[in-house]
Amino acid sequence: MAAKKKGSNNAGSSLLTRVINSSVAAKAGVPQGYPLRRFDPTKPSLDGLLVLGGAGRFSQEIRQALQADYEIAGPEFQLASETKRAALVFDATALRSLEDLCELYTFIHPQLRHLQPSARVVVIGAEPGELDGEARIVARALEGFTRSLAKEMRKGGTVQLVYVAQGVETLAPLESTLRFLLSGKSAFVDGQIIRVGTQDATPAENWHAPLEGRLALVTGAARGIGATIAEVLARDGAQVICVDVPGASEHLSATANKVKGTALPLDVTAEDAAQQIAEHAQSRYGRSIDVLVHNAGITRDKLLVNMSEQQWDQVLAVNLMAPVRITQSLLDSGDLAEGAAVIGVSSMAGISGNRGQTNYATTKAGIIGLVDALRGPLAAQGSTINAVAPGFIETAMTDAMPTGPREIGKRMNSLQQGGKPVDVAETVAFFAQRASSAVSGNVVRVCGQNIMGA
Amino acid sequence: MAAKKKGSNNAGSSLLTRVINSSVAAKAGVPQGYPLRRFDPTKPSLDGLLVLGGAGRFSQEIRQALQADYEIAGPEFQLASETKRAALVFDATALRSLEDLCELYTFIHPQLRHLQPSARVVVIGAEPGELDGEARIVARALEGFTRSLAKEMRKGGTVQLVYVAQGVETLAPLESTLRFLLSGKSAFVDGQIIRVGTQDATPAENWHAPLEGRLALVTGAARGIGATIAEVLARDGAQVICVDVPGASEHLSATANKVKGTALPLDVTAEDAAQQIAEHAQSRYGRSIDVLVHNAGITRDKLLVNMSEQQWDQVLAVNLMAPVRITQSLLDSGDLAEGAAVIGVSSMAGISGNRGQTNYATTKAGIIGLVDALRGPLAAQGSTINAVAPGFIETAMTDAMPTGPREIGKRMNSLQQGGKPVDVAETVAFFAQRASSAVSGNVVRVCGQNIMGA
Repeated sequence: MAAKKKGSNNAGSSLLTRVINSSVAAKAGVPQGYPLRRFDPTKPSLDGLLVLGGAGRFSQEIRQALQADYEIAGPEFQLASETKRAALVFDATALRSLEDLCELYTFIHPQLRHLQPSARVVVIGAEPGELDGEARIVARALEGFTRSLAKEMRKGGTVQLVYVAQGVETLAPLESTLRFLLSGKSAFVDGQIIRVGTQDATPAENWHAPLEGRLALVTGAARGIGATIAEVLARDGAQVICVDVPGASEHLSATANKVKGTALPLDVTAEDAAQQIAEHAQSRYGRSIDVLVHNAGITRDKLLVNMSEQQWDQVLAVNLMAPVRITQSLLDSGDLAEGAAVIGVSSMAGISGNRGQTNYATTKAGIIGLVDALRGPLAAQGSTINAVAPGFIETAMTDAMPTGPREIGKRMNSLQQGGKPVDVAETVAFFAQRASSAVSGNVVRVCGQNIMGA
Repeated sequence: MAAKKKGSNNAGSSLLTRVINSSVAAKAGVPQGYPLRRFDPTKPSLDGLLVLGGAGRFSQEIRQALQADYEIAGPEFQLASETKRAALVFDATALRSLEDLCELYTFIHPQLRHLQPSARVVVIGAEPGELDGEARIVARALEGFTRSLAKEMRKGGTVQLVYVAQGVETLAPLESTLRFLLSGKSAFVDGQIIRVGTQDATPAENWHAPLEGRLALVTGAARGIGATIAEVLARDGAQVICVDVPGASEHLSATANKVKGTALPLDVTAEDAAQQIAEHAQSRYGRSIDVLVHNAGITRDKLLVNMSEQQWDQVLAVNLMAPVRITQSLLDSGDLAEGAAVIGVSSMAGISGNRGQTNYATTKAGIIGLVDALRGPLAAQGSTINAVAPGFIETAMTDAMPTGPREIGKRMNSLQQGGKPVDVAETVAFFAQRASSAVSGNVVRVCGQNIMGA
């Protein structure tokens, strides 16, 4: 039967009501969202049962590859069992007809009552862009499912969708993504899509130090998110060159010392910035860059009607021209290693736009353009490019915001809390791995599934 | 200089604060957003000056083609003039380097003080997916700019981005889009992107009756948005077949009579639905369908954990399987005319996901998949497929919502008000035109730039 009601009409109002109620609660001293499970080297990556469903081409191999590190149950697992599930992985790559979509419901619905806190649901689908007819529709429909389910999860649980290219027949290109999403490293990544392509990939020799042997460079590393990125890359085994403006040298040295790396005071907008980077890498490490993280960024917020040309130009120069030109120069001069990972920092504002940030959002949408533009050229040398798009991340700057807007801003996402700098850094570190060499061209929001979007 | 601040951290909180303040105001009886300029056949399409900027390949022809109907000023126009501008059109297709982006600022910034209410800003860019290097980055960056500026507009003003494929050298493929966006027909379309391809297109002979000679079919036409779609298609000159479930026959006949069309009571999920449609079109009009609007849809909202298999199946059957199969059958049997326009109704929930709507959002994301899947096959016969994605549209159903959630839901967009069924219908009618034959593969939100997204 075909009725006339449009359910879309109430979309979002219930979410917003929750945000407002939660913000009112916050002012009354009620704590924010459920404490998230974050990475802890002393604990297992997933502390509990992983239930695997779906008859796609990866399900057998997922079980084999992961069973050393995870406790896995397959379709034979008793649905009636009260055992708490830490994760559900559904391999939807075999779904082809619209009727098949029911398998999503059949597998996931009965498990939902048994999820433990910070549970993970990961759906693996076939890349829609490579399919025709109903199979394409089915694959595309998964996105509506996972994004909705992410909004229904409780106690820090998250839901993600991984789209895998047609040529991928083994788990290797997919394994780093799966491990990242199951772990506490993806705590504040929610309702996202990660695309995995056909580039060769080798699983990490040591998943506890997946960046061993990599030379990384992080701009804007003196403080805040940049400093945390440097720390997490070093924790994962990388050597780290820390870059920031000459005026921030003291903090920059502190970061460099903390991560046992080197400090390179540098204005990223300088004509010879790329050359200085290449020379530093050669003189201090005798090699080229493996991981290039463009974290430096500034804001000059004004309504466009009140914005000066200088405010426009400064933001364009630092946030977009510098990353574009440094990357292109290092690529042209051969100072970006084969198998390198370039990582941009976009922003929610670059996706949805933001009032008062025409300049900033132009650059952050431009970073997405950089990912699109360089994906092909970099793939030719086995390298990748991706971006993170942070949502509300708690920093010294947000701590200084007035209470009302801060508490609202924090809670307008499915996890009803702000993210931490480490959440951005973990996503950067995931992109930085050699094991992620089939992960390129992605823009992953680190935003707890913030309601803002386009 | 490279500082460390991330402007993204405050993204959205200010918007949300505005929404909440506005909702509080609403409860105190303060009226909602500025009254929008909607289509009125007795008034000019654009009541005021259109200022044209940018040195792209369309700027000359836009002036020539539109000057009969619009008052147009070019770059020679005195910026200092206090004359109110009704619209700004910036042809950005010539922007190639990152430095060129400054032209956006230079043209638009000084005009903003002089906009009249319900002003239109339209930026025309080159399709990023067809470009390489900096040109691609520049084109992609436009999106951050237009989406941000849309959030800064006052008094019903909107901002849109039109991406044009490389092969398009004349205005003809673009003209219906430009006219739609400048007119009051796009009142509740804001912050959107419309992509124009290289299909041949002929401007309408009569822009006041652009659907003359077209046979349209609308499902779910008995009431609500579907009935309004039937009315607007008829207003624009189409003959309309109105479809709804047999139980709604009385209302269906009323719609059919109102639009001087025919009523076809039909369960869209019936095995022979496509056949019944084809037979009706042949027996009553002696021809095949030109405009196929899949508006029928149902909701069965439940958290997935509480959803019955029947609730899953019903929504999938009506909202997704029916449109997919009816379209495919009519295409296979030759009962979809050459040069036809297929139009799906997706939803904001299909883009962002929605709590309590895993079933509904799966189908509405699936409609986007249908657009992607059939774009190629339909292009082969000169036909198009697009979808509208409504946001908060004021209907009998939303009128029945409790005041709080309704008033919040209405205002969480840049225009700070709910849309009307006619806004959805106008966008459908734009897709339905033969003059829009280069517009295919689009999903256009009719949501006032609702803050919800992905």
